[in-house]
Amino acid sequence: MTLDPFLGNANCVSGAESSAVAIASAVQQRAISAQEVVAASLDRIQQRDGDFNAFTEVLKDSALEAAERLDQQVAQGIPVGPLAGVPFAVKNLFDVAGLTTLAGSKINREHPPAQADATVVARLKQAGAILVGTLNMDEYAYGFVTENSHYGPTHNPHDLQRIAGGSSGGSAAAVAGGLVPLSLGSDTNGSIRVPASLCGIYGLKPTYGRLSRAGVALFAGSFDHVGPFARSVADIALSFDVMQGPDPSDPVCSQRPPDPTFGQLGQGIEGLRIAVAEDYFARGAEPQILAGVEKLAQALGVTRTVRIPEAHRARAAAYLITAAEGANLHLHNLKTRPQDFDPATRDRFLAGALLPADWILQAQRFRSWYRQQVLMVFQEIDLFITPTTPCPAPLIGQEKMVIDGVEVLTRPNLGLYTQPLSFIGLPVLSVPLRETGSLPFGVQLVAAPYQEAKLLRVAAHLESLGIPNAQPV
Amino acid sequence: MTLDPFLGNANCVSGAESSAVAIASAVQQRAISAQEVVAASLDRIQQRDGDFNAFTEVLKDSALEAAERLDQQVAQGIPVGPLAGVPFAVKNLFDVAGLTTLAGSKINREHPPAQADATVVARLKQAGAILVGTLNMDEYAYGFVTENSHYGPTHNPHDLQRIAGGSSGGSAAAVAGGLVPLSLGSDTNGSIRVPASLCGIYGLKPTYGRLSRAGVALFAGSFDHVGPFARSVADIALSFDVMQGPDPSDPVCSQRPPDPTFGQLGQGIEGLRIAVAEDYFARGAEPQILAGVEKLAQALGVTRTVRIPEAHRARAAAYLITAAEGANLHLHNLKTRPQDFDPATRDRFLAGALLPADWILQAQRFRSWYRQQVLMVFQEIDLFITPTTPCPAPLIGQEKMVIDGVEVLTRPNLGLYTQPLSFIGLPVLSVPLRETGSLPFGVQLVAAPYQEAKLLRVAAHLESLGIPNAQPV
Repeated sequence: MTLDPFLGNANCVSGAESSAVAIASAVQQRAISAQEVVAASLDRIQQRDGDFNAFTEVLKDSALEAAERLDQQVAQGIPVGPLAGVPFAVKNLFDVAGLTTLAGSKINREHPPAQADATVVARLKQAGAILVGTLNMDEYAYGFVTENSHYGPTHNPHDLQRIAGGSSGGSAAAVAGGLVPLSLGSDTNGSIRVPASLCGIYGLKPTYGRLSRAGVALFAGSFDHVGPFARSVADIALSFDVMQGPDPSDPVCSQRPPDPTFGQLGQGIEGLRIAVAEDYFARGAEPQILAGVEKLAQALGVTRTVRIPEAHRARAAAYLITAAEGANLHLHNLKTRPQDFDPATRDRFLAGALLPADWILQAQRFRSWYRQQVLMVFQEIDLFITPTTPCPAPLIGQEKMVIDGVEVLTRPNLGLYTQPLSFIGLPVLSVPLRETGSLPFGVQLVAAPYQEAKLLRVAAHLESLGIPNAQPV
Repeated sequence: MTLDPFLGNANCVSGAESSAVAIASAVQQRAISAQEVVAASLDRIQQRDGDFNAFTEVLKDSALEAAERLDQQVAQGIPVGPLAGVPFAVKNLFDVAGLTTLAGSKINREHPPAQADATVVARLKQAGAILVGTLNMDEYAYGFVTENSHYGPTHNPHDLQRIAGGSSGGSAAAVAGGLVPLSLGSDTNGSIRVPASLCGIYGLKPTYGRLSRAGVALFAGSFDHVGPFARSVADIALSFDVMQGPDPSDPVCSQRPPDPTFGQLGQGIEGLRIAVAEDYFARGAEPQILAGVEKLAQALGVTRTVRIPEAHRARAAAYLITAAEGANLHLHNLKTRPQDFDPATRDRFLAGALLPADWILQAQRFRSWYRQQVLMVFQEIDLFITPTTPCPAPLIGQEKMVIDGVEVLTRPNLGLYTQPLSFIGLPVLSVPLRETGSLPFGVQLVAAPYQEAKLLRVAAHLESLGIPNAQPV
């Protein structure tokens, strides 16, 4: 049996050859070999990544070897994991044993190779997934555009003149372009959700501390998260489940036992109290984006609205803490070799290094207050809906854009709706919307800490209604 | 029956008229009335506090009224709490309904009266204790000496020429001087333990977040603690138990249910792995202090030692975060009316306001690392012992002292051994030692978070051996 694992209908799990779930099922049932799947992924990368520039390194040999070992296990009847044979790739800030972890930088090329895989990479491999490469990003994860001065911009598979978003731009483009069904990124202020939105796929930023960051280059440690990109809800759920659980090598990682979400996807939305975020989250977006939120709310029968207090201050505070925490990690290099940074990144870090302590402490105090306020909102509702980005993908190099009649800077404003949520570690799933002939964009589903299962249930329900359209380009 | 409730043997719980436990028992059994107890306390305050300057306000009328109400309850057979009739006083940074909370400052005199009691004050009252006044402190809790420029210095009851320690100097002097059997203070870097040591009484700094800080003026919120002073272990345990438990009005307060310690006091030290802290904690103290630690270790049969890594850096980091967090809370007043601060406090705050964000973030990162390192130490032991202060009480106004052959500044060095422990929120009990004819000093018992019961068990065991001597002066 020969399947092209990248041309099926990603939204339909049963029989969807291109989804991780379908690939693993086909490999387990010997309908296709892992080697065929991985070879198809590598071919697709070779054909298309010249256009996308999503990959910074392709691990052809090790991927094919891993696929061969997996096929031998299958042939011998040895049980293989739930992601058996699924090709995946990771933002190049995840440690991969034997590779130098670039984190999008030139400076880190001088670092020795990583000794071990990051915990989440190891857990995906343990589940049978096969790593095919590492992916482009904004330098040190500080940006929303993946226009990296060292490694070039990543192009949006939906329109190569446009950005893929960032900082996990390579991760989103690789999935949206059908190079892999699954990738990993990181999200501090929106770095999973923004590229997921602009590339028209799912991106999950789990609860802060829920997935281990051991072996991941940090950007702003008090709100760095890791999470998956995929073209179906089931793939997000399955990969998330595989990565869940305590990790003694990450002191920030929650001690909570895993709460598997995959089996909960069919539960529907009965009993969930869902609201649309008004006020801050209903302003400042292009009309089509707000219409998309409305469409999704109608599909869910949502009439309720909710107000998130002081979201604009949360964004301001997130900026300050990001800049200062980021600068702290790179201070020595900023002092001694500023010319080796990406200019865009360097200038933000330098600004962060010059902040007074008082601003940061004030931002941290506000953060505690704001977290309490938003947690109270979740006593009334289970989940709320906001746009992910205020617009679809801007052009590469586009410095300004007009939103709601006001000309604003493109780069910082892509995080308008994402920053106030990651700032306090809430779990968020960006769900893709797309009208025929238009660029895609995302809508955020937001829940209380550790309620990822609710997000995924709602997204699966929407998927069953045919609302999202996350087919590969 | 007439008892002088302040002249018994505080170390002997049974029949000890001067301890809180004994007072409550006598009141419950009608051996003495609450009014007699409170009147005796008020008399003693009137007689002695001219010398000590521990009180900034004496609540004579409300205390006598509360005592009368309690006596009526007793007479009517209505059950009264475990601290029935026990006079207590609080550092003047605890809210007391109807009083302006000074926090040792002149500026706060302009504040309106507090609307409600601080949670811990309310819980002590609920248990039958009777508030007789508020107590002197370093301005905004920033100091180890209680030489307050607005309210005058508090004098050590053991030697009126000497400091009582700080910042809870009034709280320690009031208990050591026999004015009350119980008081409350707060501890950020040592502000309970330092005055407990210099005044020769017990002072408990519980685990960070274990006791509610609702209604308490903060100094440096990320490591402010509240806790009790007393002259017996049982009084510390009983008052601590009464104050334990979640508080919805304090988001920092632990959700853990109370773990009553009073009933565990007789369990002895069987099975507890105790060590003496070496290295940093065995250097820089006067010989008699180190001999005291040795004496206490011998009494407990301790031969083991333990090393706390990087304690000197912990102290440095604690200084930075304290100064910056403190300055953040007072920035507006520092800018607009610096002349209204205590000069010593103002200059520390101003230094804190000028720190760069990077230093604070580096200190916070170190703190996370250090917490993990010290928690690992507690996999091997249950409890360790260190000096509380490097010396007994210095003279009022004494700027320098010679310790271990080196001349050092008096004020900052009083926190040498306390700062590295409160910095990461460990529970610590300062146990008093005193040779006849000498000034008292304290030894710290330190446990893992939420293991206060172990501290109190060991202290009760020592008390039963007659090691401490915390009799009122």
